[in-house]
Amino acid sequence: MPGNTFGKIFKITTWGESHGPGVGVVIDGCPPRIPLEAKDIQALLDRRRPGGSPASTTRREPDQAVIMSGVFEGRTTGTPILIMVHNKDASAKAYEPLADVFRPGHGDITYMAKYGIRDWRGGGRASARETVARVAAGAVAGILLEKEKVAVRAYTIELGGVQAAERRLEVIDQNMFYCPDDPAAQEMERRVRSVRRKGDSIGGVVEVLARGVPRGLGDPVFDKLDADLAGALMGIGAVKGVEIGSGFQAPRMLGSENNDQITPRGFLSNNAGGILAGISNGDDIVIRVAVKPIPSILIEQQTIDLKGNPRKISIRGRHDVAAIPRINVVCEAMVNLVLADHLLRQKAIQ
Amino acid sequence: MPGNTFGKIFKITTWGESHGPGVGVVIDGCPPRIPLEAKDIQALLDRRRPGGSPASTTRREPDQAVIMSGVFEGRTTGTPILIMVHNKDASAKAYEPLADVFRPGHGDITYMAKYGIRDWRGGGRASARETVARVAAGAVAGILLEKEKVAVRAYTIELGGVQAAERRLEVIDQNMFYCPDDPAAQEMERRVRSVRRKGDSIGGVVEVLARGVPRGLGDPVFDKLDADLAGALMGIGAVKGVEIGSGFQAPRMLGSENNDQITPRGFLSNNAGGILAGISNGDDIVIRVAVKPIPSILIEQQTIDLKGNPRKISIRGRHDVAAIPRINVVCEAMVNLVLADHLLRQKAIQ
Amino acid sequence: MPGNTFGKIFKITTWGESHGPGVGVVIDGCPPRIPLEAKDIQALLDRRRPGGSPASTTRREPDQAVIMSGVFEGRTTGTPILIMVHNKDASAKAYEPLADVFRPGHGDITYMAKYGIRDWRGGGRASARETVARVAAGAVAGILLEKEKVAVRAYTIELGGVQAAERRLEVIDQNMFYCPDDPAAQEMERRVRSVRRKGDSIGGVVEVLARGVPRGLGDPVFDKLDADLAGALMGIGAVKGVEIGSGFQAPRMLGSENNDQITPRGFLSNNAGGILAGISNGDDIVIRVAVKPIPSILIEQQTIDLKGNPRKISIRGRHDVAAIPRINVVCEAMVNLVLADHLLRQKAIQ
Amino acid sequence: MPGNTFGKIFKITTWGESHGPGVGVVIDGCPPRIPLEAKDIQALLDRRRPGGSPASTTRREPDQAVIMSGVFEGRTTGTPILIMVHNKDASAKAYEPLADVFRPGHGDITYMAKYGIRDWRGGGRASARETVARVAAGAVAGILLEKEKVAVRAYTIELGGVQAAERRLEVIDQNMFYCPDDPAAQEMERRVRSVRRKGDSIGGVVEVLARGVPRGLGDPVFDKLDADLAGALMGIGAVKGVEIGSGFQAPRMLGSENNDQITPRGFLSNNAGGILAGISNGDDIVIRVAVKPIPSILIEQQTIDLKGNPRKISIRGRHDVAAIPRINVVCEAMVNLVLADHLLRQKAIQ
Repeated sequence: MPGNTFGKIFKITTWGESHGPGVGVVIDGCPPRIPLEAKDIQALLDRRRPGGSPASTTRREPDQAVIMSGVFEGRTTGTPILIMVHNKDASAKAYEPLADVFRPGHGDITYMAKYGIRDWRGGGRASARETVARVAAGAVAGILLEKEKVAVRAYTIELGGVQAAERRLEVIDQNMFYCPDDPAAQEMERRVRSVRRKGDSIGGVVEVLARGVPRGLGDPVFDKLDADLAGALMGIGAVKGVEIGSGFQAPRMLGSENNDQITPRGFLSNNAGGILAGISNGDDIVIRVAVKPIPSILIEQQTIDLKGNPRKISIRGRHDVAAIPRINVVCEAMVNLVLADHLLRQKAIQ
Repeated sequence: MPGNTFGKIFKITTWGESHGPGVGVVIDGCPPRIPLEAKDIQALLDRRRPGGSPASTTRREPDQAVIMSGVFEGRTTGTPILIMVHNKDASAKAYEPLADVFRPGHGDITYMAKYGIRDWRGGGRASARETVARVAAGAVAGILLEKEKVAVRAYTIELGGVQAAERRLEVIDQNMFYCPDDPAAQEMERRVRSVRRKGDSIGGVVEVLARGVPRGLGDPVFDKLDADLAGALMGIGAVKGVEIGSGFQAPRMLGSENNDQITPRGFLSNNAGGILAGISNGDDIVIRVAVKPIPSILIEQQTIDLKGNPRKISIRGRHDVAAIPRINVVCEAMVNLVLADHLLRQKAIQ
Repeated sequence: MPGNTFGKIFKITTWGESHGPGVGVVIDGCPPRIPLEAKDIQALLDRRRPGGSPASTTRREPDQAVIMSGVFEGRTTGTPILIMVHNKDASAKAYEPLADVFRPGHGDITYMAKYGIRDWRGGGRASARETVARVAAGAVAGILLEKEKVAVRAYTIELGGVQAAERRLEVIDQNMFYCPDDPAAQEMERRVRSVRRKGDSIGGVVEVLARGVPRGLGDPVFDKLDADLAGALMGIGAVKGVEIGSGFQAPRMLGSENNDQITPRGFLSNNAGGILAGISNGDDIVIRVAVKPIPSILIEQQTIDLKGNPRKISIRGRHDVAAIPRINVVCEAMVNLVLADHLLRQKAIQ
Repeated sequence: MPGNTFGKIFKITTWGESHGPGVGVVIDGCPPRIPLEAKDIQALLDRRRPGGSPASTTRREPDQAVIMSGVFEGRTTGTPILIMVHNKDASAKAYEPLADVFRPGHGDITYMAKYGIRDWRGGGRASARETVARVAAGAVAGILLEKEKVAVRAYTIELGGVQAAERRLEVIDQNMFYCPDDPAAQEMERRVRSVRRKGDSIGGVVEVLARGVPRGLGDPVFDKLDADLAGALMGIGAVKGVEIGSGFQAPRMLGSENNDQITPRGFLSNNAGGILAGISNGDDIVIRVAVKPIPSILIEQQTIDLKGNPRKISIRGRHDVAAIPRINVVCEAMVNLVLADHLLRQKAIQ
């Protein structure tokens, strides 16, 4: 069944495979008369692009966004916006040796189970390249949010076991891991280089902070804001957990500790993570996302081939050592999409 | 905007407030000719009902399920099934002192921000009583799953800081917390009684295990099985985090540790939690849910009233000390609903 | 697959069979703080009820609307509104002789083909009684429309071949057929009595007029306002055709005749029927609906039984001779629902 | 709000403007392993293309379909299929004189009312060029239908007042109007030439016949097969009416005439048009669609400009005289889409 559409009012549908002609998105429901140019999208795409950090693949994609519809004379018209990115450096050849084998930790085996066919070139639709379309759409959502003074930012608070001790947001663009703790970022870099040498990979934790979200967003009881955010983020490849506010610490707190008491000047704490009963409460929205290690590793692993025979696999080629930091902008994009959708949803009942 | 519908093929819409005439659900999309009687629903409703454990409220609700449509001569007809539960012990009076004040940790303040009106009787729609409808629908979903040999079970692995050391599923129905570790359950009971005496409350962690899920369920890239499960569970009141498989431990593992290697006899481990690239891989699906402490506590807290004036609040009345164990069956119900929906979704492409 | 939900923002889900315990609707997405009482719904239900005209069945249903949720102290709260009508005069006994036979012109044979089971008591879900829920929901939609000065009215312009020569809207409540031409209404009455005596039945044409619809409603290219109206009206049992504005006359006109020329004071004609390119143009919306004769007739017909054997059938019992005039308020309800939904949809992009 | 998505399981989203870079569609939900090549789509696109008849514009578009995703080694993979057609002969210049004026009978005035901005180049999104995407998607749906032995065909039964007296389906590809009555087609041609000389335009009636549709398709009560077909067809630009089976003749028939009596060998007539109670009955589905005259005419008309001042307008340029015969394949495509979607929907409950 279809599963490539996200959002109800600001509604996107993505398409495209890793090594096909391109990837892209249709945005349907973007309000009219919003200034929009390809370069507004490019900035975020550039942050997703490989090459910025030692953790990244050496695949080189210019990832040039092309707007095919829905924009006239620099403004949205209210009609569907098709944004497309052509695949340039798509050498499927590297994947040929893997064509008849299932890579552990990848969707190869489940795509085959589900569809009875799979595009084995670089993971096909299951590739992280699919997130190009999410980021492009998230960039447009970000323009809507900016108009409403909502700012969303994702940053790395843990990588390969190295944790950020601080939340100095002003430094996150000054290191290659978008980490709010510079010394930790340096430690992360050492960790990445060491793991790469061993042919292994690592994971981490990304925190997403949304500031300025107006009170009242979220539609109980199934389209709660936290439910939609959790679904949006868990749907990113490599994500294995999502928590909001006090999250997995909440089970160890007493009600008297976890409750955010209320005063005329606001809440005394933010264990709620900005969301109460599924509706934004005006405070910062704080979410953390657990990112698993990249499954493509050089270290030899056991697996099977298409016929079920045992095989050994050692994955060479151009792979990231960690999904972080490239996944950060994808997390931002998904949060942007949820918030923009709920902003528009709320208008309908006002 | 509407937010009370869940699922795409096995699709439910819930309604009802804590202290109105009743709560219920319409199930649209249930296949025809499934044997269904009110008593099939009753068993799960009874597990959700207060009174089973020292952690529970003393509110007494018979919670009798009534089927109003969609069933003829004991079998579903393929038309919408309305299940209704009348509210009996709905003494709104106890809530009158709270009518003009916002309870910390509750949706009072956000419902007012969103709708400009709220039903203050027992939380109205934001009450945990809303989950009666989820459980009723989940019971019907469970019948579909049973036909396909899928079994879903939720159990308590942590309560008030007390952790289960074991996963002895055979004992979970032998203690009042549905805990797979009997000695831990006894410790949990002591913890609950101690906290109740202090007028405080606690949270915990529920694990949900789904066995027998066929390979191939889940619709990438936005309706991935894990994304839908995460959204479904995070949308339950009191849930602050959801993790799948290795979850928040994954960031501390190497790729070579976290990958589940594949052999002709199956996977060598289950860090994936039964889902790869958003599609079930045939292994057990394992999910953990962080449950915050019940926000209604006797201990005095700061808050404000409708006019924004500071107030003190101390909540008396009939409240649970912990959402666990009553929330467990709600978690099961939500997982049932996601799995039943995806089972039917998958049929459409086969 | 589910098919009992209508609308995207003002979203309804109906349920219930002709001879089960009752019928009803959940409205999800109704804005908060709208004054609503059961009596607001009752007025329209009374117009749908049998007994008003010689064309109607003698089944006696009080059709008392009960609001079970979503309203607090006389105003909507923004949460789902469940409206229920209990079936009182549901004597399934009359249908027993028909339990193993397919009535020509009815859904008996197709429900069996689709679901492999059917509730034969009075048509079950395929009964016109299902429209009680549409009318109840349409009444609530009507309250939203009234606030925006939109008025929707359906009236009979043809019955059993007798056509209304005039459109005197002020007389439509003065005759039992809601006909805008009193002498025609008298002729219709004679026609109905004559057909009833022969054990046969008749059809007619209903026109629906929506005044005051603001410009700009409708979402091209698939959720055009006329597309949604056509789908909504064709989905009423007994409707075989829908036309808008010049409708089936348009094919016989020249472009120079059919185009509505534009002046600073408005359009010079209304062949568009108030909708251009799927978007309301501010003019009256005018729709006509072809209603087939009631299929339940006393005259003997050929049919088959469940086993495929030939049978003769002559339907006794309490049936209308014509769906008109009872269907008129159902047409109004469906137009109300489409317009209310699109009014709210438009807010989201403004 | 978004309105460019059609279907629930075989789900399409279209995009593109008349004079932008291109038009296209994403198909999400197409089953995997279906053989698909660009040339399968091309055949239908060619039938939609201008130039085939004297009624058509002289705009020359090669309309070459490009498949950008979802197909691997000649078969669908179950992932989204993006089909794109570049606009080649897009001379926006011809529209510049019309940029500040509203063309009567067009969506210019309503798009401006709705969005506050419009792409005036050739109608932008409101152009009939949008239907390229529908036809491309309909071609893919047609492949699914063919596998199930369902055949859909649209033909002209009336043009400019000239009616087809016969339904000789074998001749419809032998005349330029897809008319099942050759002599009528010749008369239609004369009519078209005469109207073109006068600078005027004409409309007509298209009949769509679907053969081999299995019994049981359609989801009561709102997603009935006839409701979905009516919505799908009324949503095509220029369509003002839709009728099924006896349609607007039903109101003039008695129940005993209009009912299709049932025998062991099938129905004795087909006034139902193949659909009973919203569900296909296995008989031919027969639908007729009223098509208005093309609104772009040379004959001078009154209109207003953007500022509301009166203007005269006489539309030159490359316009069809009639939407027929080019609209026929669009009608086929929409019927294909509805039927393919319902075929897949039905699988989910079987």
